[in-house]
Amino acid sequence: MTEKNTLLQVVFPRCPLLRIEGPLAVAQLLETAILNLTNFASLMATNAQRMRLAAGADKTLLEFGLRRSQGPDGAISAARYAFVGGFDGTSNCLAAKLFGMTAKGTHAHAFVSSFHGPEDLASPLLDGKDLWAAVLAQRAELGPAFLNTNTSELVAFVAYAQAFPNGFLALVDTYDTLQSGVLNFICVALVLRAFGKTPVGIRLDSGDLAYLSKQARALFAQHGLGGEDVQPKVVIVASNDINEDVLHSLAKQGHEVDTFGIGTNLVTCQAQPALGMVYKLVECKGRPCVKLSDEYEKTTLPGRKKVYRLFGKSKEALADVMQHFDEPAPQAGQALRCHHPFVERKRCDVRPTEVLELLRLVMQNGKVTCSLPTVRELRDFAATQVRVLREDHIRSLNPTAYKVSLSESYSAFCKELWGASMPIELIE
Amino acid sequence: MTEKNTLLQVVFPRCPLLRIEGPLAVAQLLETAILNLTNFASLMATNAQRMRLAAGADKTLLEFGLRRSQGPDGAISAARYAFVGGFDGTSNCLAAKLFGMTAKGTHAHAFVSSFHGPEDLASPLLDGKDLWAAVLAQRAELGPAFLNTNTSELVAFVAYAQAFPNGFLALVDTYDTLQSGVLNFICVALVLRAFGKTPVGIRLDSGDLAYLSKQARALFAQHGLGGEDVQPKVVIVASNDINEDVLHSLAKQGHEVDTFGIGTNLVTCQAQPALGMVYKLVECKGRPCVKLSDEYEKTTLPGRKKVYRLFGKSKEALADVMQHFDEPAPQAGQALRCHHPFVERKRCDVRPTEVLELLRLVMQNGKVTCSLPTVRELRDFAATQVRVLREDHIRSLNPTAYKVSLSESYSAFCKELWGASMPIELIE
Repeated sequence: MTEKNTLLQVVFPRCPLLRIEGPLAVAQLLETAILNLTNFASLMATNAQRMRLAAGADKTLLEFGLRRSQGPDGAISAARYAFVGGFDGTSNCLAAKLFGMTAKGTHAHAFVSSFHGPEDLASPLLDGKDLWAAVLAQRAELGPAFLNTNTSELVAFVAYAQAFPNGFLALVDTYDTLQSGVLNFICVALVLRAFGKTPVGIRLDSGDLAYLSKQARALFAQHGLGGEDVQPKVVIVASNDINEDVLHSLAKQGHEVDTFGIGTNLVTCQAQPALGMVYKLVECKGRPCVKLSDEYEKTTLPGRKKVYRLFGKSKEALADVMQHFDEPAPQAGQALRCHHPFVERKRCDVRPTEVLELLRLVMQNGKVTCSLPTVRELRDFAATQVRVLREDHIRSLNPTAYKVSLSESYSAFCKELWGASMPIELIE
Repeated sequence: MTEKNTLLQVVFPRCPLLRIEGPLAVAQLLETAILNLTNFASLMATNAQRMRLAAGADKTLLEFGLRRSQGPDGAISAARYAFVGGFDGTSNCLAAKLFGMTAKGTHAHAFVSSFHGPEDLASPLLDGKDLWAAVLAQRAELGPAFLNTNTSELVAFVAYAQAFPNGFLALVDTYDTLQSGVLNFICVALVLRAFGKTPVGIRLDSGDLAYLSKQARALFAQHGLGGEDVQPKVVIVASNDINEDVLHSLAKQGHEVDTFGIGTNLVTCQAQPALGMVYKLVECKGRPCVKLSDEYEKTTLPGRKKVYRLFGKSKEALADVMQHFDEPAPQAGQALRCHHPFVERKRCDVRPTEVLELLRLVMQNGKVTCSLPTVRELRDFAATQVRVLREDHIRSLNPTAYKVSLSESYSAFCKELWGASMPIELIE
């Protein structure tokens, strides 16, 4: 059982994600390795969680990014942290196997285009009955629109249904989504149901996903594949350049998509392709160290410190506060003066109902001192973390900045040290 | 010796990068692996080459992206393809070792901030002479501005100079670039020169790189570290959120940077984080296959084909043309009618002075049939490729589209097949 309090809490800009103590040379050697392992992981999990918030809790999200990530290993990392951030599965079989995730995908366009006519079927049968003949009869019964579809696509769907009679999920845009793919799916799905099988659904991979998904759902309903009696529900999977904005836009327009397959814009983190976490020396031989910068936001916060998260009456996080390592911890019920790190006039008093120390010991003398969570435990924990944040802090557009502050005494100490380290420029 | 004609030529949208022939099931299994291995590689090399064009041939470009790439293996791929695209070295030591690239970097901010006073020097000596005393004497001689710098930074520079007397490259923005870092560098560099050593230069990592580099160069000149007699030239390295636009802007403003260290925006390919190459079935059992799409640019070009590059009188590439596999090759001196793949009215006659077939056999029956180039050979070849392109095709803003066309007969064939595969929609 993983102790919840050794898991990383959600982290905000300027708060330390990790504190490392050790011999200077060793600690410096770790810099790039630690940044390599934390920057992309945090970025991916955050990006995935943003997509989860945009899509809604009831949608299934699949990671489809293997072909656009930074090599085979980059793809494994991407799948892993997409899952931590709230995705449900991946099309990357190795990642699924390594981390106990669900492997999900559909067939390729090439599968459909490799078929020409019924002569390409190794056999017309399913469970000893003539599936192809049944499909042709069903097609004729469904009428003219169904007879006008691409026949080679229908043959491909039949071949797929023979191989996966209970996993029949057809990619419907090889020739034309509404004029061919969806109709061919309906035809084969109805026959499968008559054969006692459970067809799964369709995947849309181009065009207007809101419109196509609604049209497809209407066609399902019209032909006995909608309504309460069809269980499990016939699913509509959508893929094709989906990103956070598309998810928001689809939600606004209304759509009938159950599952989103997201690749490129998930794994390349299109909205912000890099997370700029840095690793800085803050104390050496008991003395605080500082790194100044022409860009004041890049100035480091000196000295070994502790970070506390302060929660309010509504159980939501109010602010984080950094203090000297040896300052007494904030107490629930007592007001605490919190200062903005750089802007003098920005300060407030916070009276928390609960105080949580954010940095916990996880490794000492080269040994891990806590039980390591599974990828699934990390995913569950990450989902709970989003719920402790006020909605305006996590809305997608112009979120309210979450307060990351310094205690009164630590703030005064930083200001003094920054002033002492920076030569005064003479302008003439 | 690598045969030049087995190396991949520069490739344009819609031209096949690879043609794979084999049993359907095997060829389909390859899809994701091939896309994973080619998409990011091509994107990185292209991105690096664009930065090379923006920076100019005389600048040194270093890949600094390890901390922002997709895990350790993603970083290795990034370093490798940055080199292929024209970078000179990398800060990733493993990548440098694996591919015979130059490993280059500087010290970290943490190195500077770990020093406090001269008591932190293990010894004041260099080659048996008192370096620290000589630096203090030099500082006093240089005058008030030099006495006003951050002393702990000066100590750090002296420690670094003791370890690398001929590799002294100082990161100058820990406290203040012009008020402290550059002055401390000059002081230590002058003493190193007096000791018979060759100091290397500085690295700027924040602020206005055009202004700071010019000011630093002026300060060097003013204190005997400029001019023709100082050889090798004292170098100025710049890093800090550099991208293609910054390189263009710096070139326009004028600057004194010799070397750019580029990380984040190089390895995450900020300008376009993903390359959308796809892998499609074009022929099966001797029959052409097609994949249509609501988005016409996603329609595939059916059938096994050959691709030729046509060169003009000026030795520059005029157009690429795709043909049926068995059509006779275009001939130098003979005009050829070339059609736009989708836009009927766009066509032209091309009379090439030279014709190059783009796809060559590199693997057969599981065996590589050509000699494999080294990473360095790939880099050299990529550089020659840019020179066969007209300047307006590779300018950074609104480049002229390079013509990728179809032969008369192949164009007619495609149109017929697309028409036959697509049901006609009835709008009512």
